[in-house]
Amino acid sequence: MNAPVAPARILRHDSGNDIHTDDILATEEPLEIRLGHGLLDDRKEFRLSVTMRTPGNDQELALGFLFTEGLISTPDDVLRVEHCSSVKPEERGNVVRVELGADVALDPARWQRNFYTTSSCGVCGKSSIDAVKVQCNKAIVPWGPVDPAVITALPDRMREAQTVFRHTGGIHAAALFDRAGNLLLLREDIGRHNAVDKVIGAALRGIPGFLSGGDGYQLLVSGRAGFELVQKCVVAGIPLMAAVGAPSSIGVDLARTSGLTLIGFLRGPKFNLYAPVE
Amino acid sequence: MNAPVAPARILRHDSGNDIHTDDILATEEPLEIRLGHGLLDDRKEFRLSVTMRTPGNDQELALGFLFTEGLISTPDDVLRVEHCSSVKPEERGNVVRVELGADVALDPARWQRNFYTTSSCGVCGKSSIDAVKVQCNKAIVPWGPVDPAVITALPDRMREAQTVFRHTGGIHAAALFDRAGNLLLLREDIGRHNAVDKVIGAALRGIPGFLSGGDGYQLLVSGRAGFELVQKCVVAGIPLMAAVGAPSSIGVDLARTSGLTLIGFLRGPKFNLYAPVE
Repeated sequence: MNAPVAPARILRHDSGNDIHTDDILATEEPLEIRLGHGLLDDRKEFRLSVTMRTPGNDQELALGFLFTEGLISTPDDVLRVEHCSSVKPEERGNVVRVELGADVALDPARWQRNFYTTSSCGVCGKSSIDAVKVQCNKAIVPWGPVDPAVITALPDRMREAQTVFRHTGGIHAAALFDRAGNLLLLREDIGRHNAVDKVIGAALRGIPGFLSGGDGYQLLVSGRAGFELVQKCVVAGIPLMAAVGAPSSIGVDLARTSGLTLIGFLRGPKFNLYAPVE
Repeated sequence: MNAPVAPARILRHDSGNDIHTDDILATEEPLEIRLGHGLLDDRKEFRLSVTMRTPGNDQELALGFLFTEGLISTPDDVLRVEHCSSVKPEERGNVVRVELGADVALDPARWQRNFYTTSSCGVCGKSSIDAVKVQCNKAIVPWGPVDPAVITALPDRMREAQTVFRHTGGIHAAALFDRAGNLLLLREDIGRHNAVDKVIGAALRGIPGFLSGGDGYQLLVSGRAGFELVQKCVVAGIPLMAAVGAPSSIGVDLARTSGLTLIGFLRGPKFNLYAPVE
């Protein structure tokens, strides 16, 4: 098992003074996701992707990635997810195999493309948004009015739970809260998209009825809200997404056409509401 | 031509007060890169990739991307780069065609993989680093001692030149400086990797002898220094990379084995030197 942090000897400079000291870095290592199919021989598999990630919760990452990229539509499509043991010693812990059910349609042509939803359609904002809609199982149930007292309390709750960030200052987080603002899940990763995939993968596995929406979930991300992150939220049917940083133009467009409540620059007593807006 | 920023009507909340107001967002739109080959018919082309980016300097982005991903080894491999005019009206400005010289080897199998250097080799930190080394034309000429007065002056110079960030607060920047700390090039993009590719593409085109290293260039990035960004710097032979944020474990490993001087947490009078370290 690879550790999420790694020690490093560094030189710290402050106003003319140099100190040799020990530091802790966020670990970044490649993760390969392989797909097997329930009907196929155990040794037959398709090499789906390699992504740089922070080790930890790799199975959730693989599950969330397959789901938010539209390759599976329910966690029931997956028979099992596990680290491969039949790899070279130095690759141990960096290869995950996902076994799909025999009734899941296989479309290798789709998998060989880069994993941008947009790659299958026209190259403009509107067609990118249309592609996400096609991928969604069902429409978002609108969140309704945002309660400032609830939303402004979320960043502190996330930060308190961020163990890797506390040590390294160099890692993104995503956190899932219930309607009242109680923290349900938190995951950290060097890649913001991985942190979101880990949370969604964990929710698919661990929260009964997550996809039916419950009383409404809210997702907080430590960085910005670009297209890719908003897409993942929309595909998972989460009705409210908040970001500590700025949203992008197409992130806002996608939120507005999907019924997603999108909040940005959530800091202290302040936030901006980007969608819906009258 | 798509604009790098877009207006949006939003609701701004501050300590119990709501104000409807106008805001400016960083534009995020898909860019498709197509490859043509000098020997082929003009209509024959290969769809290389679709990436989400902030419009502007698209030709530099395409050139820098091809170079830092190891698909070309010199700007001379490219006959021309231009926006495609034969696309649907809504896609205009979002498709760039790169015409490769007739003597450039074509390897479509390589292009069909995801663009991680690591995808062609083993899945561990060491093999990721080995793959970058194979891709490099030549070794980095070590920077030598870091001058605190020069390095700590860079962030302010970059920030002053960041026009899109000033308006949106939501965009990354990469800037190239000479040895003395004079700003040579600055590019902004919603994706940090795109900002670096734009700078390197612009340097390949506009700075004579850039690849021979000159008196030494330094690259500053507004975010963190992960594997992908350090890789781009190493492939371009830039001897010093500084980041406002944290480096990752493998970013530091790659810097140390490549002779790259790597600085992180460059803020005010402080910085950390991660490589080289005694």
